Amino acid sequence: MTDLEIRHPKFIENLTGHVSDSGIDGFLGIRHVEMGAGYLVVEFDVKDEHMTPMGNMHGGCLAALCDHSLGMVLYPVMPPGSWAATTEFKVNYLKPVSGGTCQAIASIEAMTQRSAVVVIRVENEKDGEKRIVALAQGTCTVKLAEERAG
Amino acid sequence: MTDLEIRHPKFIENLTGHVSDSGIDGFLGIRHVEMGAGYLVVEFDVKDEHMTPMGNMHGGCLAALCDHSLGMVLYPVMPPGSWAATTEFKVNYLKPVSGGTCQAIASIEAMTQRSAVVVIRVENEKDGEKRIVALAQGTCTVKLAEERAG
Amino acid sequence: MTDLEIRHPKFIENLTGHVSDSGIDGFLGIRHVEMGAGYLVVEFDVKDEHMTPMGNMHGGCLAALCDHSLGMVLYPVMPPGSWAATTEFKVNYLKPVSGGTCQAIASIEAMTQRSAVVVIRVENEKDGEKRIVALAQGTCTVKLAEERAG
Amino acid sequence: MTDLEIRHPKFIENLTGHVSDSGIDGFLGIRHVEMGAGYLVVEFDVKDEHMTPMGNMHGGCLAALCDHSLGMVLYPVMPPGSWAATTEFKVNYLKPVSGGTCQAIASIEAMTQRSAVVVIRVENEKDGEKRIVALAQGTCTVKLAEERAG
Repeated sequence: MTDLEIRHPKFIENLTGHVSDSGIDGFLGIRHVEMGAGYLVVEFDVKDEHMTPMGNMHGGCLAALCDHSLGMVLYPVMPPGSWAATTEFKVNYLKPVSGGTCQAIASIEAMTQRSAVVVIRVENEKDGEKRIVALAQGTCTVKLAEERAG
Repeated sequence: MTDLEIRHPKFIENLTGHVSDSGIDGFLGIRHVEMGAGYLVVEFDVKDEHMTPMGNMHGGCLAALCDHSLGMVLYPVMPPGSWAATTEFKVNYLKPVSGGTCQAIASIEAMTQRSAVVVIRVENEKDGEKRIVALAQGTCTVKLAEERAG
Repeated sequence: MTDLEIRHPKFIENLTGHVSDSGIDGFLGIRHVEMGAGYLVVEFDVKDEHMTPMGNMHGGCLAALCDHSLGMVLYPVMPPGSWAATTEFKVNYLKPVSGGTCQAIASIEAMTQRSAVVVIRVENEKDGEKRIVALAQGTCTVKLAEERAG
Repeated sequence: MTDLEIRHPKFIENLTGHVSDSGIDGFLGIRHVEMGAGYLVVEFDVKDEHMTPMGNMHGGCLAALCDHSLGMVLYPVMPPGSWAATTEFKVNYLKPVSGGTCQAIASIEAMTQRSAVVVIRVENEKDGEKRIVALAQGTCTVKLAEERAG
Protein backbone atom coordinates (compact mmCIF):
# COMPACT_ATOMS: atom_id res chain seq x y z
CA MET A 1 0.00 0.00 0.00
CA THR A 2 1.31 3.43 -0.83
CA ASP A 3 -1.14 5.72 0.96
CA LEU A 4 -0.27 4.81 4.54
CA GLU A 5 1.26 7.43 6.76
CA ILE A 6 3.41 7.20 9.83
CA ARG A 7 1.39 7.92 12.94
CA HIS A 8 3.82 6.69 15.59
CA PRO A 9 7.32 7.94 14.70
CA LYS A 10 8.53 7.29 18.26
CA PHE A 11 7.90 3.56 17.75
CA ILE A 12 10.19 3.54 14.73
CA GLU A 13 12.82 5.54 16.56
CA ASN A 14 12.74 3.14 19.53
CA LEU A 15 12.62 -0.14 17.65
CA THR A 16 15.06 0.48 14.80
CA GLY A 17 18.26 -1.36 15.62
CA HIS A 18 16.70 -3.07 18.63
CA VAL A 19 17.63 -6.72 19.12
CA SER A 20 14.98 -8.80 20.93
CA ASP A 21 16.35 -10.30 24.13
CA SER A 22 13.22 -11.92 25.54
CA GLY A 23 10.26 -13.89 24.19
CA ILE A 24 10.42 -16.18 21.18
CA ASP A 25 11.81 -13.23 19.20
CA GLY A 26 14.58 -13.12 21.80
CA PHE A 27 15.20 -16.86 21.33
CA LEU A 28 15.65 -16.17 17.62
CA GLY A 29 17.67 -13.01 18.28
CA ILE A 30 15.58 -10.85 15.95
CA ARG A 31 17.12 -7.53 14.89
CA HIS A 32 14.70 -4.79 13.81
CA VAL A 33 16.59 -3.42 10.83
CA GLU A 34 14.29 -0.92 9.19
CA MET A 35 10.69 0.29 9.36
CA GLY A 36 8.52 2.69 7.41
CA ALA A 37 4.94 3.47 6.41
CA GLY A 38 3.70 -0.03 5.64
CA TYR A 39 6.88 -2.07 5.65
CA LEU A 40 9.32 -3.70 8.06
CA VAL A 41 12.65 -5.47 7.72
CA VAL A 42 13.78 -7.85 10.48
CA GLU A 43 16.42 -10.58 10.55
CA PHE A 44 18.23 -13.09 12.71
CA ASP A 45 21.38 -15.17 12.48
CA VAL A 46 20.82 -18.92 12.27
CA LYS A 47 22.49 -20.55 15.27
CA ASP A 48 22.96 -24.11 16.51
CA GLU A 49 20.01 -23.76 18.88
CA HIS A 50 17.68 -23.19 15.90
CA MET A 51 18.52 -26.48 14.21
CA THR A 52 16.78 -29.85 14.28
CA PRO A 53 18.74 -33.07 14.82
CA MET A 54 18.45 -33.53 11.00
CA GLY A 55 20.83 -30.59 10.45
CA ASN A 56 18.41 -28.03 9.07
CA MET A 57 16.79 -25.10 10.81
CA HIS A 58 13.47 -25.97 12.47
CA GLY A 59 10.59 -24.64 10.36
CA GLY A 60 9.06 -23.25 13.52
CA CYS A 61 11.77 -20.56 13.53
CA LEU A 62 10.52 -19.20 10.20
CA ALA A 63 6.91 -19.47 11.36
CA ALA A 64 7.72 -17.48 14.50
CA LEU A 65 9.64 -14.91 12.44
CA CYS A 66 6.61 -14.45 10.15
CA ASP A 67 4.19 -14.17 13.07
CA HIS A 68 6.40 -11.57 14.74
CA SER A 69 6.74 -9.49 11.55
CA LEU A 70 3.00 -9.62 10.86
CA GLY A 71 2.06 -7.70 13.97
CA MET A 72 5.14 -5.50 14.21
CA VAL A 73 4.77 -3.95 10.74
CA LEU A 74 1.53 -2.26 11.82
CA TYR A 75 2.73 -0.24 14.83
CA PRO A 76 4.30 2.66 12.89
CA VAL A 77 1.02 3.36 11.05
CA MET A 78 -1.29 3.17 14.06
CA PRO A 79 -1.65 5.96 16.63
CA PRO A 80 0.33 5.44 19.87
CA GLY A 81 -1.56 3.20 22.29
CA SER A 82 -3.12 1.03 19.55
CA TRP A 83 -2.31 -2.63 19.23
CA ALA A 84 -2.24 -5.32 16.56
CA ALA A 85 -2.53 -9.10 16.99
CA THR A 86 -2.06 -11.76 14.34
CA THR A 87 -5.33 -13.63 13.85
CA GLU A 88 -4.27 -15.98 11.08
CA PHE A 89 -1.52 -16.59 8.59
CA LYS A 90 -0.28 -19.08 6.06
CA VAL A 91 3.30 -19.84 5.21
CA ASN A 92 4.98 -21.77 2.40
CA TYR A 93 8.50 -23.00 3.06
CA LEU A 94 10.44 -22.90 -0.19
CA LYS A 95 13.90 -24.18 0.68
CA PRO A 96 15.62 -25.66 3.73
CA VAL A 97 17.88 -23.33 5.72
CA SER A 98 21.17 -24.58 7.13
CA GLY A 99 22.90 -21.40 8.29
CA GLY A 100 23.57 -17.74 7.55
CA THR A 101 20.97 -15.02 8.11
CA CYS A 102 17.20 -15.04 7.62
CA GLN A 103 15.68 -11.71 6.70
CA ALA A 104 11.94 -11.03 6.55
CA ILE A 105 10.43 -8.16 4.60
CA ALA A 106 6.83 -7.55 5.65
CA SER A 107 4.49 -5.22 3.76
CA ILE A 108 0.93 -4.13 4.44
CA GLU A 109 -1.26 -4.93 1.44
CA ALA A 110 -4.59 -3.69 2.80
CA MET A 111 -5.69 -1.98 6.00
CA THR A 112 -8.96 -0.88 7.55
CA GLN A 113 -9.89 0.40 11.01
CA ARG A 114 -10.22 -3.17 12.21
CA SER A 115 -7.72 -5.30 10.36
CA ALA A 116 -4.80 -5.47 7.96
CA VAL A 117 -3.53 -8.05 5.50
CA VAL A 118 0.24 -8.42 5.37
CA VAL A 119 2.59 -10.40 3.13
CA ILE A 120 6.06 -11.51 4.14
CA ARG A 121 8.99 -12.64 2.08
CA VAL A 122 11.86 -14.37 3.86
CA GLU A 123 15.31 -14.58 2.32
CA ASN A 124 18.27 -16.57 3.54
CA GLU A 125 21.76 -15.25 2.89
CA LYS A 126 24.54 -17.78 3.30
CA ASP A 127 28.05 -17.87 1.86
CA GLY A 128 27.31 -14.76 -0.18
CA GLU A 129 24.25 -16.28 -1.83
CA LYS A 130 20.69 -15.06 -1.30
CA ARG A 131 17.64 -17.27 -1.80
CA ILE A 132 13.97 -16.85 -0.98
CA VAL A 133 13.08 -19.48 1.64
CA ALA A 134 9.54 -18.65 2.78
CA LEU A 135 6.46 -16.69 1.76
CA ALA A 136 3.65 -15.85 4.16
CA GLN A 137 0.33 -14.04 4.07
CA GLY A 138 -1.90 -13.23 7.00
CA THR A 139 -4.30 -11.01 8.88
CA CYS A 140 -3.89 -8.82 11.94
CA THR A 141 -6.71 -7.56 14.07
CA VAL A 142 -6.21 -3.88 14.75
CA LYS A 143 -7.48 -2.06 17.82
CA LEU A 144 -6.90 1.65 17.51
CA ALA A 145 -6.09 3.74 20.57
CA GLU A 146 -9.33 5.74 20.28
CA GLU A 147 -11.41 2.54 20.40
CA ARG A 148 -9.50 1.21 23.37
CA ALA A 149 -10.16 4.41 25.24
CA GLY A 150 -13.84 4.41 24.17
CA MET B 1 -7.48 -41.43 8.62
CA THR B 2 -8.25 -44.82 10.03
CA ASP B 3 -6.29 -47.14 7.76
CA LEU B 4 -2.78 -46.09 8.70
CA GLU B 5 -0.53 -48.56 10.39
CA ILE B 6 2.46 -48.15 12.63
CA ARG B 7 5.66 -48.83 10.74
CA HIS B 8 8.19 -47.43 13.19
CA PRO B 9 7.24 -48.59 16.71
CA LYS B 10 10.72 -47.77 18.02
CA PHE B 11 10.11 -44.08 17.25
CA ILE B 12 7.00 -44.08 19.42
CA GLU B 13 8.83 -45.92 22.17
CA ASN B 14 11.71 -43.43 22.12
CA LEU B 15 9.72 -40.23 21.81
CA THR B 16 6.82 -40.85 24.18
CA GLY B 17 7.47 -38.90 27.34
CA HIS B 18 10.49 -37.15 25.81
CA VAL B 19 10.80 -33.44 26.63
CA SER B 20 12.63 -31.39 23.98
CA ASP B 21 15.73 -29.73 25.37
CA SER B 22 17.19 -28.15 22.25
CA GLY B 23 15.89 -26.34 19.20
CA ILE B 24 12.79 -24.16 19.17
CA ASP B 25 10.87 -27.13 20.58
CA GLY B 26 13.37 -27.05 23.44
CA PHE B 27 12.76 -23.32 23.92
CA LEU B 28 9.04 -24.11 24.27
CA GLY B 29 9.75 -27.17 26.44
CA ILE B 30 7.56 -29.48 24.34
CA ARG B 31 6.58 -32.79 25.96
CA HIS B 32 5.67 -35.65 23.61
CA VAL B 33 2.67 -37.06 25.45
CA GLU B 34 1.19 -39.69 23.18
CA MET B 35 1.52 -41.02 19.65
CA GLY B 36 -0.29 -43.56 17.50
CA ALA B 37 -1.14 -44.50 13.92
CA GLY B 38 -1.99 -41.07 12.53
CA TYR B 39 -2.14 -38.92 15.63
CA LEU B 40 0.13 -37.14 18.08
CA VAL B 41 -0.37 -35.25 21.35
CA VAL B 42 2.27 -32.74 22.46
CA GLU B 43 2.16 -29.93 25.03
CA PHE B 44 4.17 -27.27 26.81
CA ASP B 45 3.75 -25.09 29.88
CA VAL B 46 3.45 -21.38 29.18
CA LYS B 47 6.33 -19.58 30.89
CA ASP B 48 7.42 -15.98 31.26
CA GLU B 49 9.91 -16.35 28.42
CA HIS B 50 7.02 -17.11 26.00
CA MET B 51 5.19 -13.84 26.66
CA THR B 52 5.23 -10.53 24.81
CA PRO B 53 5.58 -7.23 26.67
CA MET B 54 1.76 -6.92 26.25
CA GLY B 55 1.23 -9.78 28.71
CA ASN B 56 0.01 -12.49 26.33
CA MET B 57 1.90 -15.40 24.88
CA HIS B 58 3.64 -14.60 21.59
CA GLY B 59 1.67 -16.09 18.69
CA GLY B 60 4.94 -17.42 17.30
CA CYS B 61 4.94 -20.02 20.11
CA LEU B 62 1.70 -21.54 18.81
CA ALA B 63 2.97 -21.34 15.22
CA ALA B 64 6.15 -23.20 16.21
CA LEU B 65 4.11 -25.77 18.15
CA CYS B 66 1.96 -26.42 15.07
CA ASP B 67 4.96 -26.67 12.76
CA HIS B 68 6.63 -29.13 15.11
CA SER B 69 3.51 -31.31 15.42
CA LEU B 70 2.94 -31.34 11.66
CA GLY B 71 6.14 -33.17 10.89
CA MET B 72 6.36 -35.26 14.04
CA VAL B 73 2.97 -36.95 13.63
CA LEU B 74 4.21 -38.70 10.49
CA TYR B 75 7.22 -40.57 11.84
CA PRO B 76 5.33 -43.47 13.45
CA VAL B 77 3.62 -44.35 10.14
CA MET B 78 6.72 -44.13 7.94
CA PRO B 79 9.37 -46.84 7.75
CA PRO B 80 12.53 -46.15 9.81
CA GLY B 81 14.91 -43.89 7.91
CA SER B 82 12.17 -41.86 6.20
CA TRP B 83 11.70 -38.18 6.88
CA ALA B 84 8.95 -35.59 6.77
CA ALA B 85 9.27 -31.82 6.36
CA THR B 86 6.50 -29.24 6.64
CA THR B 87 6.07 -27.51 3.29
CA GLU B 88 3.20 -25.23 4.18
CA PHE B 89 0.59 -24.62 6.82
CA LYS B 90 -2.06 -22.17 7.88
CA VAL B 91 -3.05 -21.33 11.42
CA ASN B 92 -5.99 -19.43 12.93
CA TYR B 93 -5.48 -18.07 16.43
CA LEU B 94 -8.80 -18.21 18.26
CA LYS B 95 -8.10 -16.76 21.71
CA PRO B 96 -5.15 -15.13 23.45
CA VAL B 97 -3.15 -17.31 25.86
CA SER B 98 -1.90 -15.89 29.15
CA GLY B 99 -0.69 -18.96 31.04
CA GLY B 100 -1.34 -22.62 31.81
CA THR B 101 -0.59 -25.41 29.33
CA CYS B 102 -0.96 -25.53 25.54
CA GLN B 103 -1.72 -28.96 24.11
CA ALA B 104 -1.71 -29.76 20.40
CA ILE B 105 -3.50 -32.76 18.93
CA ALA B 106 -2.32 -33.45 15.39
CA SER B 107 -4.03 -35.93 13.08
CA ILE B 108 -3.21 -37.11 9.58
CA GLU B 109 -6.16 -36.51 7.26
CA ALA B 110 -4.65 -37.79 4.03
CA MET B 111 -1.37 -39.44 3.11
CA THR B 112 0.31 -40.58 -0.08
CA GLN B 113 3.83 -41.79 -0.88
CA ARG B 114 4.95 -38.19 -1.28
CA SER B 115 2.94 -36.04 1.09
CA ALA B 116 0.45 -35.84 3.91
CA VAL B 117 -2.15 -33.32 5.02
CA VAL B 118 -2.40 -32.82 8.76
CA VAL B 119 -4.79 -30.85 10.97
CA ILE B 120 -3.92 -29.58 14.42
CA ARG B 121 -6.13 -28.43 17.25
CA VAL B 122 -4.51 -26.53 20.11
CA GLU B 123 -6.17 -26.25 23.50
CA ASN B 124 -5.11 -24.12 26.43
CA GLU B 125 -5.84 -25.34 29.94
CA LYS B 126 -5.61 -22.70 32.65
CA ASP B 127 -7.16 -22.54 36.10
CA GLY B 128 -9.09 -25.74 35.42
CA GLU B 129 -10.68 -24.38 32.24
CA LYS B 130 -9.99 -25.72 28.74
CA ARG B 131 -10.45 -23.64 25.60
CA ILE B 132 -9.50 -24.16 21.98
CA VAL B 133 -6.94 -21.47 21.08
CA ALA B 134 -5.66 -22.38 17.61
CA LEU B 135 -6.49 -24.48 14.57
CA ALA B 136 -3.98 -25.33 11.87
CA GLN B 137 -3.89 -27.26 8.61
CA GLY B 138 -0.87 -28.04 6.51
CA THR B 139 1.16 -30.26 4.24
CA CYS B 140 4.28 -32.33 4.83
CA THR B 141 6.54 -33.61 2.14
CA VAL B 142 7.32 -37.24 2.78
CA LYS B 143 10.48 -38.99 1.69
CA LEU B 144 10.28 -42.69 2.38
CA ALA B 145 13.37 -44.64 3.36
CA GLU B 146 13.25 -46.76 0.17
CA GLU B 147 13.33 -43.64 -2.03
CA ARG B 148 16.19 -42.15 -0.08
CA ALA B 149 18.16 -45.33 -0.57
CA GLY B 150 17.19 -45.50 -4.27
CA MET C 1 -18.56 -25.80 19.03
CA THR C 2 -21.29 -27.23 21.19
CA ASP C 3 -22.68 -24.18 22.90
CA LEU C 4 -24.17 -22.42 19.89
CA GLU C 5 -27.91 -21.98 19.70
CA ILE C 6 -30.24 -21.48 16.79
CA ARG C 7 -31.34 -17.87 16.52
CA HIS C 8 -32.85 -17.89 13.04
CA PRO C 9 -35.00 -21.04 12.70
CA LYS C 10 -36.83 -19.55 9.70
CA PHE C 11 -33.54 -19.53 7.75
CA ILE C 12 -33.12 -23.26 8.31
CA GLU C 13 -36.73 -23.89 7.37
CA ASN C 14 -36.37 -21.91 4.13
CA LEU C 15 -32.99 -23.18 3.03
CA THR C 16 -33.21 -26.88 3.83
CA GLY C 17 -33.78 -28.74 0.60
CA HIS C 18 -33.23 -25.60 -1.48
CA VAL C 19 -31.22 -26.06 -4.68
CA SER C 20 -29.32 -22.94 -5.80
CA ASP C 21 -30.41 -21.82 -9.26
CA SER C 22 -28.41 -18.61 -9.62
CA GLY C 23 -24.93 -17.39 -8.78
CA ILE C 24 -21.86 -19.61 -8.74
CA ASP C 25 -23.73 -21.87 -6.30
CA GLY C 26 -26.39 -22.16 -9.02
CA PHE C 27 -23.70 -23.04 -11.58
CA LEU C 28 -22.61 -25.86 -9.27
CA GLY C 29 -26.22 -26.81 -8.49
CA ILE C 30 -25.67 -26.80 -4.73
CA ARG C 31 -28.34 -28.55 -2.62
CA HIS C 32 -28.68 -27.43 1.00
CA VAL C 33 -29.14 -30.79 2.67
CA GLU C 34 -29.10 -30.14 6.38
CA MET C 35 -28.39 -27.36 8.84
CA GLY C 36 -28.18 -27.00 12.60
CA ALA C 37 -26.56 -25.02 15.42
CA GLY C 38 -23.03 -24.72 14.09
CA TYR C 39 -23.04 -27.11 11.16
CA LEU C 40 -24.16 -27.33 7.55
CA VAL C 41 -24.27 -30.06 4.90
CA VAL C 42 -24.38 -29.08 1.22
CA GLU C 43 -23.66 -31.05 -1.94
CA PHE C 44 -23.70 -31.01 -5.73
CA ASP C 45 -23.55 -33.53 -8.54
CA VAL C 46 -20.44 -33.35 -10.68
CA LYS C 47 -21.48 -32.62 -14.26
CA ASP C 48 -19.70 -32.20 -17.59
CA GLU C 49 -19.70 -28.43 -17.23
CA HIS C 50 -17.58 -28.71 -14.07
CA MET C 51 -14.73 -30.56 -15.75
CA THR C 52 -11.46 -29.32 -17.24
CA PRO C 53 -10.27 -30.49 -20.67
CA MET C 54 -7.97 -32.87 -18.73
CA GLY C 55 -10.97 -34.90 -17.58
CA ASN C 56 -11.05 -33.99 -13.90
CA MET C 57 -13.28 -31.54 -12.10
CA HIS C 58 -11.89 -28.01 -12.00
CA GLY C 59 -10.48 -27.28 -8.53
CA GLY C 60 -12.31 -23.97 -8.61
CA CYS C 61 -15.57 -25.90 -8.09
CA LEU C 62 -14.36 -27.19 -4.73
CA ALA C 63 -13.02 -23.75 -3.80
CA ALA C 64 -16.39 -22.18 -4.59
CA LEU C 65 -18.19 -24.91 -2.64
CA CYS C 66 -15.98 -24.21 0.41
CA ASP C 67 -16.46 -20.46 0.15
CA HIS C 68 -20.23 -20.89 -0.09
CA SER C 69 -20.36 -23.22 2.92
CA LEU C 70 -18.16 -20.95 5.02
CA GLY C 71 -20.65 -18.10 5.05
CA MET C 72 -23.83 -20.14 4.93
CA VAL C 73 -23.12 -22.17 8.08
CA LEU C 74 -23.36 -19.01 10.19
CA TYR C 75 -26.87 -17.80 9.31
CA PRO C 76 -28.79 -20.19 11.59
CA VAL C 77 -26.86 -19.01 14.68
CA MET C 78 -27.10 -15.27 13.98
CA PRO C 79 -30.23 -13.20 14.64
CA PRO C 80 -32.34 -12.48 11.52
CA GLY C 81 -30.97 -9.50 9.59
CA SER C 82 -27.31 -10.27 10.38
CA TRP C 83 -24.84 -11.20 7.68
CA ALA C 84 -21.60 -13.12 7.31
CA ALA C 85 -18.90 -12.73 4.66
CA THR C 86 -15.88 -14.94 4.11
CA THR C 87 -12.73 -12.91 4.70
CA GLU C 88 -10.17 -15.62 4.13
CA PHE C 89 -9.81 -19.35 3.77
CA LYS C 90 -7.33 -22.04 2.88
CA VAL C 91 -8.07 -25.27 1.11
CA ASN C 92 -6.07 -28.46 0.53
CA TYR C 93 -7.14 -30.64 -2.37
CA LEU C 94 -6.57 -34.26 -1.43
CA LYS C 95 -7.68 -36.25 -4.46
CA PRO C 96 -8.88 -35.49 -7.99
CA VAL C 97 -12.63 -35.73 -8.61
CA SER C 98 -13.95 -37.25 -11.83
CA GLY C 99 -17.68 -37.64 -11.17
CA GLY C 100 -20.31 -38.54 -8.59
CA THR C 101 -21.38 -36.18 -5.81
CA CYS C 102 -19.32 -33.73 -3.73
CA GLN C 103 -20.62 -33.15 -0.22
CA ALA C 104 -19.26 -30.48 2.14
CA ILE C 105 -19.73 -30.60 5.89
CA ALA C 106 -18.99 -27.23 7.47
CA SER C 107 -18.67 -26.71 11.21
CA ILE C 108 -18.11 -23.62 13.30
CA GLU C 109 -15.04 -24.05 15.49
CA ALA C 110 -15.04 -20.65 17.19
CA MET C 111 -17.33 -17.63 17.11
CA THR C 112 -17.34 -14.15 18.59
CA GLN C 113 -19.51 -11.08 17.98
CA ARG C 114 -17.31 -10.14 15.04
CA SER C 115 -16.04 -13.29 13.42
CA ALA C 116 -16.12 -17.04 13.23
CA VAL C 117 -13.65 -19.73 12.23
CA VAL C 118 -15.09 -22.59 10.23
CA VAL C 119 -13.66 -25.90 8.98
CA ILE C 120 -14.97 -27.78 5.99
CA ARG C 121 -14.53 -31.38 4.96
CA VAL C 122 -15.47 -32.32 1.40
CA GLU C 123 -16.20 -35.91 0.44
CA ASN C 124 -16.74 -37.31 -3.01
CA GLU C 125 -19.04 -40.30 -3.44
CA LYS C 126 -18.69 -42.13 -6.73
CA ASP C 127 -19.60 -45.68 -7.70
CA GLY C 128 -20.55 -46.45 -4.11
CA GLU C 129 -17.18 -45.34 -2.73
CA LYS C 130 -16.66 -42.33 -0.48
CA ARG C 131 -13.34 -40.48 -0.22
CA ILE C 132 -12.30 -37.23 1.39
CA VAL C 133 -11.21 -34.86 -1.41
CA ALA C 134 -10.70 -31.48 0.24
CA LEU C 135 -10.20 -29.85 3.61
CA ALA C 136 -10.66 -26.12 4.21
CA GLN C 137 -10.36 -23.69 7.10
CA GLY C 138 -11.33 -20.05 7.10
CA THR C 139 -12.73 -16.94 8.73
CA CYS C 140 -16.01 -15.12 8.31
CA THR C 141 -16.65 -11.57 9.34
CA VAL C 142 -19.93 -11.38 11.22
CA LYS C 143 -22.15 -8.32 11.35
CA LEU C 144 -25.00 -8.86 13.78
CA ALA C 145 -28.41 -7.33 13.10
CA GLU C 146 -28.19 -5.10 16.19
CA GLU C 147 -24.91 -3.58 14.97
CA ARG C 148 -26.27 -2.99 11.51
CA ALA C 149 -29.24 -1.17 12.96
CA GLY C 150 -27.00 0.81 15.37
CA MET D 1 11.27 -15.62 -10.17
CA THR D 2 13.45 -14.21 -12.88
CA ASP D 3 15.34 -17.24 -14.12
CA LEU D 4 12.45 -19.15 -15.65
CA GLU D 5 12.38 -19.74 -19.35
CA ILE D 6 9.57 -20.42 -21.76
CA ARG D 7 9.47 -24.08 -22.73
CA HIS D 8 6.06 -24.23 -24.37
CA PRO D 9 5.65 -21.18 -26.64
CA LYS D 10 2.77 -22.85 -28.49
CA PHE D 11 0.71 -22.82 -25.27
CA ILE D 12 1.13 -19.06 -24.97
CA GLU D 13 0.30 -18.58 -28.64
CA ASN D 14 -2.88 -20.67 -28.31
CA LEU D 15 -4.14 -19.33 -25.01
CA THR D 16 -3.46 -15.61 -25.34
CA GLY D 17 -6.73 -13.89 -26.09
CA HIS D 18 -8.71 -17.08 -25.52
CA VAL D 19 -11.98 -16.67 -23.60
CA SER D 20 -13.07 -19.75 -21.64
CA ASP D 21 -16.44 -21.04 -22.80
CA SER D 22 -16.78 -24.18 -20.70
CA GLY D 23 -16.02 -25.25 -17.14
CA ILE D 24 -16.14 -22.93 -14.16
CA ASP D 25 -13.72 -20.64 -16.03
CA GLY D 26 -16.37 -20.55 -18.77
CA PHE D 27 -19.04 -19.67 -16.20
CA LEU D 28 -16.86 -16.72 -15.14
CA GLY D 29 -16.00 -15.86 -18.76
CA ILE D 30 -12.25 -15.73 -18.10
CA ARG D 31 -10.12 -13.99 -20.75
CA HIS D 32 -6.46 -15.00 -20.94
CA VAL D 33 -4.89 -11.59 -21.45
CA GLU D 34 -1.16 -12.11 -21.26
CA MET D 35 1.37 -14.77 -20.38
CA GLY D 36 5.14 -14.98 -20.04
CA ALA D 37 7.97 -16.79 -18.27
CA GLY D 38 6.52 -17.03 -14.77
CA TYR D 39 3.51 -14.75 -14.95
CA LEU D 40 -0.07 -14.71 -16.20
CA VAL D 41 -2.79 -12.08 -16.50
CA VAL D 42 -6.44 -13.19 -16.70
CA GLU D 43 -9.69 -11.31 -16.16
CA PHE D 44 -13.47 -11.50 -16.32
CA ASP D 45 -16.36 -9.07 -16.34
CA VAL D 46 -18.61 -9.21 -13.29
CA LYS D 47 -22.11 -10.12 -14.43
CA ASP D 48 -25.49 -10.57 -12.72
CA GLU D 49 -25.00 -14.32 -12.60
CA HIS D 50 -21.90 -13.86 -10.38
CA MET D 51 -23.76 -11.98 -7.64
CA THR D 52 -25.31 -13.16 -4.39
CA PRO D 53 -28.81 -12.07 -3.36
CA MET D 54 -27.04 -9.56 -1.06
CA GLY D 55 -25.86 -7.57 -4.11
CA ASN D 56 -22.15 -8.36 -4.04
CA MET D 57 -20.19 -10.82 -6.12
CA HIS D 58 -20.02 -14.30 -4.60
CA GLY D 59 -16.59 -14.85 -3.05
CA GLY D 60 -16.49 -18.22 -4.77
CA CYS D 61 -15.91 -16.40 -8.08
CA LEU D 62 -12.63 -14.95 -6.80
CA ALA D 63 -11.65 -18.30 -5.30
CA ALA D 64 -12.27 -20.02 -8.65
CA LEU D 65 -10.35 -17.27 -10.49
CA CYS D 66 -7.36 -17.79 -8.15
CA ASP D 67 -7.47 -21.56 -8.51
CA HIS D 68 -7.59 -21.28 -12.29
CA SER D 69 -4.66 -18.85 -12.41
CA LEU D 70 -2.55 -20.96 -10.07
CA GLY D 71 -2.37 -23.89 -12.45
CA MET D 72 -2.43 -21.98 -15.71
CA VAL D 73 0.61 -19.81 -14.97
CA LEU D 74 2.83 -22.89 -15.03
CA TYR D 75 2.13 -24.25 -18.51
CA PRO D 76 4.38 -21.85 -20.45
CA VAL D 77 7.42 -22.85 -18.38
CA MET D 78 6.87 -26.62 -18.50
CA PRO D 79 7.72 -28.77 -21.54
CA PRO D 80 4.69 -29.68 -23.73
CA GLY D 81 2.83 -32.65 -22.31
CA SER D 82 3.47 -31.74 -18.67
CA TRP D 83 0.65 -30.85 -16.31
CA ALA D 84 0.10 -28.82 -13.16
CA ALA D 85 -2.61 -29.22 -10.54
CA THR D 86 -3.34 -26.93 -7.61
CA THR D 87 -2.79 -28.81 -4.38
CA GLU D 88 -3.55 -26.04 -1.92
CA PHE D 89 -4.05 -22.31 -1.70
CA LYS D 90 -5.10 -19.57 0.64
CA VAL D 91 -6.97 -16.43 -0.26
CA ASN D 92 -7.71 -13.20 1.60
CA TYR D 93 -10.64 -11.17 0.35
CA LEU D 94 -9.86 -7.49 0.83
CA LYS D 95 -12.91 -5.64 -0.43
CA PRO D 96 -16.37 -6.57 -1.73
CA VAL D 97 -16.88 -6.47 -5.50
CA SER D 98 -20.10 -5.13 -6.97
CA GLY D 99 -19.34 -4.84 -10.70
CA GLY D 100 -16.70 -3.93 -13.29
CA THR D 101 -13.80 -6.25 -14.16
CA CYS D 102 -11.70 -8.55 -11.96
CA GLN D 103 -8.12 -9.05 -13.12
CA ALA D 104 -5.74 -11.59 -11.61
CA ILE D 105 -1.99 -11.35 -11.95
CA ALA D 106 -0.31 -14.63 -11.03
CA SER D 107 3.43 -15.00 -10.58
CA ILE D 108 5.61 -18.00 -9.86
CA GLU D 109 7.69 -17.39 -6.73
CA ALA D 110 9.49 -20.72 -6.54
CA MET D 111 9.59 -23.80 -8.74
CA THR D 112 11.18 -27.23 -8.56
CA GLN D 113 10.79 -30.39 -10.64
CA ARG D 114 7.81 -31.39 -8.52
CA SER D 115 6.02 -28.24 -7.40
CA ALA D 116 5.69 -24.50 -7.63
CA VAL D 117 4.53 -21.76 -5.28
CA VAL D 118 2.47 -19.03 -6.89
CA VAL D 119 1.08 -15.73 -5.62
CA ILE D 120 -1.94 -13.99 -7.10
CA ARG D 121 -3.11 -10.43 -6.81
CA VAL D 122 -6.66 -9.63 -7.91
CA GLU D 123 -7.72 -6.11 -8.79
CA ASN D 124 -11.21 -4.85 -9.49
CA GLU D 125 -11.67 -1.97 -11.91
CA LYS D 126 -15.03 -0.23 -11.73
CA ASP D 127 -16.08 3.26 -12.78
CA GLY D 128 -12.49 4.12 -13.63
CA GLU D 129 -11.19 3.18 -10.20
CA LYS D 130 -8.84 0.26 -9.49
CA ARG D 131 -8.65 -1.46 -6.11
CA ILE D 132 -6.95 -4.62 -4.90
CA VAL D 133 -9.70 -7.05 -3.82
CA ALA D 134 -7.96 -10.35 -3.15
CA LEU D 135 -4.54 -11.87 -2.47
CA ALA D 136 -3.80 -15.55 -2.78
CA GLN D 137 -0.84 -17.88 -2.32
CA GLY D 138 -0.69 -21.55 -3.15
CA THR D 139 1.09 -24.64 -4.38
CA CYS D 140 0.85 -26.60 -7.61
CA THR D 141 2.03 -30.11 -8.08
CA VAL D 142 4.02 -30.35 -11.27
CA LYS D 143 4.34 -33.49 -13.39
CA LEU D 144 6.82 -32.97 -16.19
CA ALA D 145 6.32 -34.64 -19.55
CA GLU D 146 9.45 -36.76 -19.18
CA GLU D 147 8.19 -38.20 -15.88
CA ARG D 148 4.80 -38.94 -17.32
CA ALA D 149 6.43 -40.81 -20.17
CA GLY D 150 8.78 -42.65 -17.79
